[in-house]
Amino acid sequence: MSAPHAVHLRRLRRLLPEGELLTSPVECQPYAGDKWFASRVPDAVALPRSTESVARLLAYAFHHRLPVTARGAGHGYVGGCVPQQGGIVLSLERMNRIKEIHVGDFVAIVEPGVHTQTLQDAVEKKGLYYPPDPASRKDCSIGGNIASNAGGPRCLKYGVTRDYVLGLEVVRANGEVLRLGSRTHKNKTGFDLARLFVGSEGLLGVITEATLKLLPLPPYRALLVVGFDHMGQAARAIRRIFAAGFLPCALEVADQFTLEAARRRTGSRRLSGCGALIFVELDGRQNAVKADLRDLRRLLGSLPHLFIQHALGAEACEQLWQLRREFSYALRDTGLTKLNEDIVVPRGRLEDLFRFTARLQKESGFPVACFGHAGDGNIHVNIMVDFNQPDAEARSRKVLDQLFTQILAWGGVITGEHGVGLAKKPWFPQAVTPAVRRFHQDVKAALDPHGILNPGKFI
Amino acid sequence: MSAPHAVHLRRLRRLLPEGELLTSPVECQPYAGDKWFASRVPDAVALPRSTESVARLLAYAFHHRLPVTARGAGHGYVGGCVPQQGGIVLSLERMNRIKEIHVGDFVAIVEPGVHTQTLQDAVEKKGLYYPPDPASRKDCSIGGNIASNAGGPRCLKYGVTRDYVLGLEVVRANGEVLRLGSRTHKNKTGFDLARLFVGSEGLLGVITEATLKLLPLPPYRALLVVGFDHMGQAARAIRRIFAAGFLPCALEVADQFTLEAARRRTGSRRLSGCGALIFVELDGRQNAVKADLRDLRRLLGSLPHLFIQHALGAEACEQLWQLRREFSYALRDTGLTKLNEDIVVPRGRLEDLFRFTARLQKESGFPVACFGHAGDGNIHVNIMVDFNQPDAEARSRKVLDQLFTQILAWGGVITGEHGVGLAKKPWFPQAVTPAVRRFHQDVKAALDPHGILNPGKFI
Repeated sequence: MSAPHAVHLRRLRRLLPEGELLTSPVECQPYAGDKWFASRVPDAVALPRSTESVARLLAYAFHHRLPVTARGAGHGYVGGCVPQQGGIVLSLERMNRIKEIHVGDFVAIVEPGVHTQTLQDAVEKKGLYYPPDPASRKDCSIGGNIASNAGGPRCLKYGVTRDYVLGLEVVRANGEVLRLGSRTHKNKTGFDLARLFVGSEGLLGVITEATLKLLPLPPYRALLVVGFDHMGQAARAIRRIFAAGFLPCALEVADQFTLEAARRRTGSRRLSGCGALIFVELDGRQNAVKADLRDLRRLLGSLPHLFIQHALGAEACEQLWQLRREFSYALRDTGLTKLNEDIVVPRGRLEDLFRFTARLQKESGFPVACFGHAGDGNIHVNIMVDFNQPDAEARSRKVLDQLFTQILAWGGVITGEHGVGLAKKPWFPQAVTPAVRRFHQDVKAALDPHGILNPGKFI
Repeated sequence: MSAPHAVHLRRLRRLLPEGELLTSPVECQPYAGDKWFASRVPDAVALPRSTESVARLLAYAFHHRLPVTARGAGHGYVGGCVPQQGGIVLSLERMNRIKEIHVGDFVAIVEPGVHTQTLQDAVEKKGLYYPPDPASRKDCSIGGNIASNAGGPRCLKYGVTRDYVLGLEVVRANGEVLRLGSRTHKNKTGFDLARLFVGSEGLLGVITEATLKLLPLPPYRALLVVGFDHMGQAARAIRRIFAAGFLPCALEVADQFTLEAARRRTGSRRLSGCGALIFVELDGRQNAVKADLRDLRRLLGSLPHLFIQHALGAEACEQLWQLRREFSYALRDTGLTKLNEDIVVPRGRLEDLFRFTARLQKESGFPVACFGHAGDGNIHVNIMVDFNQPDAEARSRKVLDQLFTQILAWGGVITGEHGVGLAKKPWFPQAVTPAVRRFHQDVKAALDPHGILNPGKFI
């Protein structure tokens, strides 16, 4: 596929309503990438205000074989929306209306550009709940969340974005508009084709509307933070929590390196000498949550630990969670570049993972900071690199190789919620069998026969 | 596609291990259908013991364009496994091993022929939990559950079968074996292709192994049964339960006709004069469940109702649930044929649905019994037909037409958990747009280019 000639851009400009196509390099520059390293300035940026515009654009691009790379809010971590072969970037940012929040049906209908937090605030005002909570929820959009099947701490109890997608309006590569799924909470009419687009990273179609499932808002929350001497104690506590039949809404863990960085940033004395920390959040109705909290405190108190803190109610919980949010900033404070790998291990491999990353740190000389969703086995392994050092790039690449090879050997996966994009593309062939790659290609060919959608990625 | 010549059957017999192919009509007869009306005796029945056999059979059938219809335990309700064009029925009943239950990883790996209840019993012994609970779970198999994306009462809190499928081994139409997904609880490696097969009713590939997500077993359960004067009161109670932030694991409802039939069968005096009944189950840890139960009882007690019963602990709950199980038997006792339609309405339409079915009953002269998963809007609407009456077939068809047309007009769907099969096939074109049908065909063509898998169904 080649970059569109100027004549195409002129025709596209006529095809779309006024102001929906940018072509000057300066205007296109902000659409060159996301939060990852790679970038490429596209030849044009479309900013459609309607499904009709998206359909027109794709029909034209399909006919003329022009690359089209859709993007949400540009807060991805893997370069998934970098227009690797140039062409047109299709930004959904202007399609940002919440079309409907229905209290009786427990659904929201939104355009893809709605920010996740905006939706959450809006539904919570009506006593409803949209659980998926990626860390970037203030800045990321529902469309991007769907394209990457975004997760977050609450996945443990509530599942990932996929579990909240009831219906989608999707524009196919050829410009045809599909309305898949429904506004019902269950549906077995034909194949589950709406969810084929969830996590498809813009390679199969462009989402122009989503019908999302909502839950009753849990009226109460409580949070326990427990510090441990070392990770073995934390892993044991996690096992005991599950064995006792608790299903927390979040169960997060942080390792020593992360905690030491957080201690330096926050000055917290508690964190000094703390080798591992877990956050356990419970939600539901107040009396039930308080009963669970008492039981959980008793259980954790009976196990070896350094300290236990707790918070009752949404506001106090948010304050205590602030520490978790400091982790990312604290790692940034180190001045090093953070290669954030959202690997997942089978749940029982948590301790093995932490032992392995400790060894990796020792052998490679790169600091390795681990924190994340312990309940899911989805840990953010952050390799901290000083790219001013000689050979840093080659050496960090080798460390990533070692990490991914071990994760895959355990039956783990190289990405749990960020996606493949460009960052994980080199390891995709190692992560799936040749038969599975062929199968990906067959599905891609059926949906996007000319390969115009987000070309240059993992297919 | 035409029936296989005798020469194919002879060759297939040589291709497969001893005893894995039946060809006599008497032996093939039990594989002619499921719990629905339609049936057709296949030309041969394959009873593979291994993935290797399934792969060989499909490779041969692919090459020679022979129809292959896979089946689980044959307990479907829509004729989904009727070999509509003859050919070979592929029964997975002998592939019924539980290969692994891993307490640390919270996964089970099973062959498709394992019965759902068998798996549930096995994991519960280890303190683990596999929530999907179709009513037929004693008799149905995991493979069939996956092919139809089976639900059940607990879906409200725990989701459907799809939400528990982490990985699948699938044999493609051409005999190629794919291993999709993983044993991790999160995975964003490429497209979500394992779940494309969930709910695909045997039209896209044959499932030979499933890796299922397990949860910690909730240690305690409590059940409330509440009788009401009329359905309006029940619907109001349901709204209030959600508004108060409860997320029960099940919330079932039954209408007057169902209750009257159950009263006649069980002799329960409580049910006389009862116009609507709800079951609300809570689960979790004992103290929390008891706290929720107290709150819920207080809430429901404050609303108009006829009676409230409750049960504490698994055993007492099971006894009280028995009444729910009687509903199906009670309807059978009427001597009428039950056309069980598992429609779903947007949650807010419950009252409208019950008003509509009451009118349908009045206008058509057919008794209509409704019960099911109120929390999901997934209600089993049972049209009770005496097929000895003149025109019963045409008249019942007309009533189904009216029902489905109204459900679709509300934004509802014609099937929530049973699938399309043959029973709902006449309404599939009404239920989806031409563009969505074309899209189904494109996906089918990509995965099964010669259309050998379960031909004659909704594609």
